[in-house]
Amino acid sequence: MTYHVDLNCDMGESFGAYRIGHDEEILPFITSANIACGYHAGDPATMRKTVKQALAYQVALGAHPGLPDLQGFGRRNMKITPAEAYEYVVYQIGALQAFIQAEGGVMQHVKPHGALYNMAAVDSKLAEAIAEAVYRVNPELYLVGLAGSHLIAKGKEAGLRVKNEVFADRTYQQDGTLTPRSQSDALITDENEAVSQVIRMVKEGKVATRQATDKDILAETICIHGDGQHALAFAQRVRASLESAGIEVRAMGK
Amino acid sequence: MTYHVDLNCDMGESFGAYRIGHDEEILPFITSANIACGYHAGDPATMRKTVKQALAYQVALGAHPGLPDLQGFGRRNMKITPAEAYEYVVYQIGALQAFIQAEGGVMQHVKPHGALYNMAAVDSKLAEAIAEAVYRVNPELYLVGLAGSHLIAKGKEAGLRVKNEVFADRTYQQDGTLTPRSQSDALITDENEAVSQVIRMVKEGKVATRQATDKDILAETICIHGDGQHALAFAQRVRASLESAGIEVRAMGK
Amino acid sequence: MTYHVDLNCDMGESFGAYRIGHDEEILPFITSANIACGYHAGDPATMRKTVKQALAYQVALGAHPGLPDLQGFGRRNMKITPAEAYEYVVYQIGALQAFIQAEGGVMQHVKPHGALYNMAAVDSKLAEAIAEAVYRVNPELYLVGLAGSHLIAKGKEAGLRVKNEVFADRTYQQDGTLTPRSQSDALITDENEAVSQVIRMVKEGKVATRQATDKDILAETICIHGDGQHALAFAQRVRASLESAGIEVRAMGK
Amino acid sequence: MTYHVDLNCDMGESFGAYRIGHDEEILPFITSANIACGYHAGDPATMRKTVKQALAYQVALGAHPGLPDLQGFGRRNMKITPAEAYEYVVYQIGALQAFIQAEGGVMQHVKPHGALYNMAAVDSKLAEAIAEAVYRVNPELYLVGLAGSHLIAKGKEAGLRVKNEVFADRTYQQDGTLTPRSQSDALITDENEAVSQVIRMVKEGKVATRQATDKDILAETICIHGDGQHALAFAQRVRASLESAGIEVRAMGK
Repeated sequence: MTYHVDLNCDMGESFGAYRIGHDEEILPFITSANIACGYHAGDPATMRKTVKQALAYQVALGAHPGLPDLQGFGRRNMKITPAEAYEYVVYQIGALQAFIQAEGGVMQHVKPHGALYNMAAVDSKLAEAIAEAVYRVNPELYLVGLAGSHLIAKGKEAGLRVKNEVFADRTYQQDGTLTPRSQSDALITDENEAVSQVIRMVKEGKVATRQATDKDILAETICIHGDGQHALAFAQRVRASLESAGIEVRAMGK
Repeated sequence: MTYHVDLNCDMGESFGAYRIGHDEEILPFITSANIACGYHAGDPATMRKTVKQALAYQVALGAHPGLPDLQGFGRRNMKITPAEAYEYVVYQIGALQAFIQAEGGVMQHVKPHGALYNMAAVDSKLAEAIAEAVYRVNPELYLVGLAGSHLIAKGKEAGLRVKNEVFADRTYQQDGTLTPRSQSDALITDENEAVSQVIRMVKEGKVATRQATDKDILAETICIHGDGQHALAFAQRVRASLESAGIEVRAMGK
Repeated sequence: MTYHVDLNCDMGESFGAYRIGHDEEILPFITSANIACGYHAGDPATMRKTVKQALAYQVALGAHPGLPDLQGFGRRNMKITPAEAYEYVVYQIGALQAFIQAEGGVMQHVKPHGALYNMAAVDSKLAEAIAEAVYRVNPELYLVGLAGSHLIAKGKEAGLRVKNEVFADRTYQQDGTLTPRSQSDALITDENEAVSQVIRMVKEGKVATRQATDKDILAETICIHGDGQHALAFAQRVRASLESAGIEVRAMGK
Repeated sequence: MTYHVDLNCDMGESFGAYRIGHDEEILPFITSANIACGYHAGDPATMRKTVKQALAYQVALGAHPGLPDLQGFGRRNMKITPAEAYEYVVYQIGALQAFIQAEGGVMQHVKPHGALYNMAAVDSKLAEAIAEAVYRVNPELYLVGLAGSHLIAKGKEAGLRVKNEVFADRTYQQDGTLTPRSQSDALITDENEAVSQVIRMVKEGKVATRQATDKDILAETICIHGDGQHALAFAQRVRASLESAGIEVRAMGK
């Protein structure tokens, strides 16, 4: 039996004179790039550049739409309506799509960012609106959401192909949700443990939870963080460890 | 011999709780809508609504990209680079394109807004960058620019189909440019005179200038203003007068 | 025994080319103006103009800080931290304060806007942060909040003078909160009823609730809405009715 | 005879999740901080933090108002009116002033940023509007402008105390303007040369120009850049060199 998984990373988060992330260094190790679209981060110049870089490294391209909150980097929940979620996602997918067309590429997927991602994981109305937005713009796009979340369910209902996302460096609860960052044991800081967790998720379809029981989980794409001091080294290590474990790393659309 | 011309109007300029324009009232009288894309005006909710309305009235759809200056409504010149012009236009065309796709429509044209339009009329580098942006996103799009301007010339060079725009209520200079609004005789306030000017431009290909000589001009699409007290009445009148004069009013792409 | 109350109205909500409200028409009937500060609405030109107009009508000046959400007009809850609330309020008070200084006026009060107002009414940490912001910028300022809310309590604790605000056209719950707008009976559409409610609140210190019992309420300032078709007529009527009922209408700081 | 000069640096340019500059490292070496006010850079959290840091290092506080162009970092000329320049400067001074009040400090000066600074150096109407803004908010503030520029002249006319600013690492033209960055010899990259230039400007009141002649110049405050790899080392060196040359480094207001 063969295993495979996608490695994705948030990219193109710089804005104007401001730089975030180490996109070009990390691109060689990932298979899918989630590119910010100018709402929570990113700007047209950064989008253009990031699309070109990702194409140069043959990394698959995705839109990473977020809330209209640059000051909060899209990480603060906002009480938006499903209609607003729909409209924000359509707008941002379109903006990125044009840069991809201009460079002769193809968009593979959409993954909501930050608070929009988290809200859509637990709010079925927002999830449905986002899925509808993606579908109506392009029904061929993959929709990426938290493994087992409402976004995954609503994406399927809408007729989209979905991809369940897991995290290497986050701990899980018995119900499959991530331990909130406000709790002390939210992050896995031991890299060995993080690597073991993703390999087990991919191969066995299980993850240990904070409640000391295992939870079934479908790991189709793994999120790697692109900023922080150790981002590059960790990306390299996760990639190498997956391959050593006999897991093929390839874009979700392949 | 038969004559025809397109009637276009800037639309979708509302933003959040703010309302500008009388879009729905004017749509029955025009053939092409230039829809704001969220930079100088407009927002995702307005874009969605405006696309739907225009489709309902069978008015052709165009993107109306502007400068990133909501506070100045895109009317203040900004010293942007050609690369920035390219990126802003790609971004905004894409954002609108997604709303059009979501509603099952087709984008017909692109017309830059305000200061971006004016700068592109006289700056060949900006004009070239804008034309390239349109072409690379979709070479089937029409590019609308000031009649006889650099934008028209560069659009043609890029391989695009272009449409020369004229104004009913503005006066012209001997070199074909519009009399600057800072001058007292910039506007034609007499509606009879305005209507006569457009009919002559369409039928004879000539316009009287402030220097009392005639200037050759190609009138392929006429700009109607959608705000102001008399916008609706004037739109109706221009439309009726053109038709009475034997000029067919039809979308530029038809 | 004599009665008195303040009549306040949100003002200066225009932005760039966008117009909202009928400020100049309503100013003759109110005693305190809450001026938007450029976050949820307003811009520097509008702030300058509104300060001048209010001074001309001898209406007392207040800051109306909101969330950084122009697209949502500051009406959407955002999960901001108390530190962010503090910082947003300091920033906005300061910006308005400078326009008031430039015109030789004096700031009287601060009243948070929209979602910030509503969140601060029920979240004691946000209320405390806002009160601290006001106090540290200028301890002489009055702080306006929903009558009986956390914002009033925290304002007092901080050492500020507070003013309990009531609404003419909203219904109340047994616990003193406003009936949420999502419920059908949130608004009082009968003007007679609205006028009777405010007069009773001022004179008797009581308001009828949806639960058919009376609730004690302190009515120190009444909010009048400045937009909508009937805003002006209603402002006139409330003012006249209060005075006919022997209630002096004067600014909270007088 | 004794010499003295002020060393100023642009600070507080971070925004949300984005970091620019090495403020805390450079503060020990400068005497005046120009703090961004949320238009071209900076946000309320950054303003609060920067004011506190500068106070801790006993560095004098100034407002650094810029154009409303975060995406362009305030470096792109915009065709704003004098009224808009006035309003933008009032707004931004006020916002910073409130943070300074909240921390118990005093604002010393105002120095426009980037394109606003450059435009005000050569456009007397903009210069006059900015000077009036500063004066009307607080006539005790110092106004910093390019040495010998229109901003300096208009500041004096308005009744403000002005401070002529010079640059260590920029070359000068015969007319006292800086060599435009578009020219190859705009920057002085040799640190020895840069240090010698500022010492000579302070002690002799002269600067060599690209036209090989000397130009009289008044050096009251020297601009040090806070970003870039060598910013910290250069700040240390300029400070030490000035003091070794017998020039006291002290805030302009002392």
